[in-house]
Amino acid sequence: MTGFLDAIAFDAQGLVPVIAQQHDSGEVLMLAWMNRQAIEETLATGRVCYWSRSRRALWRKGETSGQVQRLIEMRLDCDQDALLLKVDQTGVACHTGRRSCFFHRVEGEAAVVAAPVVVDPATLYK
Amino acid sequence: MTGFLDAIAFDAQGLVPVIAQQHDSGEVLMLAWMNRQAIEETLATGRVCYWSRSRRALWRKGETSGQVQRLIEMRLDCDQDALLLKVDQTGVACHTGRRSCFFHRVEGEAAVVAAPVVVDPATLYK
Repeated sequence: MTGFLDAIAFDAQGLVPVIAQQHDSGEVLMLAWMNRQAIEETLATGRVCYWSRSRRALWRKGETSGQVQRLIEMRLDCDQDALLLKVDQTGVACHTGRRSCFFHRVEGEAAVVAAPVVVDPATLYK
Repeated sequence: MTGFLDAIAFDAQGLVPVIAQQHDSGEVLMLAWMNRQAIEETLATGRVCYWSRSRRALWRKGETSGQVQRLIEMRLDCDQDALLLKVDQTGVACHTGRRSCFFHRVEGEAAVVAAPVVVDPATLYK
């Protein structure tokens, strides 16, 4: 598939969901979104850039916190509407200071915190 | 967080993106979508049920192909708008007969097939 960017099935907002996975441990770090420009920048620089839906702007992961993601490999799924990034995460992926954003484990009808804060968020966002 | 279902930030279509990861190998298998009913059914039965956006119906993964996913653990992310399922995948996750749906690796401007077909799709969908 050449010109893979033209094959991506972006949604009505021009976005595609993106999974970030630590390349060596296999840990799933986060789910975020990219538009075409974010994909192009990520591939050009090797540093992961998402689209922030809340700020409606490109979001160079780690630009404030220093917790950047270096791209190791980009993968596209069978129906071209989701991306998987294998990355090398500096520090922590989550703004709460946890390694992964998926730190709530569902137990019955509750979601319990199942991962420790490893970096004080106050040191990340000064 | 009790009553975690009420805390989920479903999108305008009432859906949330869901990552399925093989619990022991860490392989990311697919990204799909769930509505509230699909989450409830998955938790009640232990067998993963998605919402099919194309068919606009509950999608009991493997109902046609036999390639079911057994739920090991469900996780919710920091802003409650994505789920991560640790599953035990019978056979293959992808309708193409590949283990994972993320079988296209981006190389330059192309996406190349980077994983083998391990089950003939003709035997899955008779």
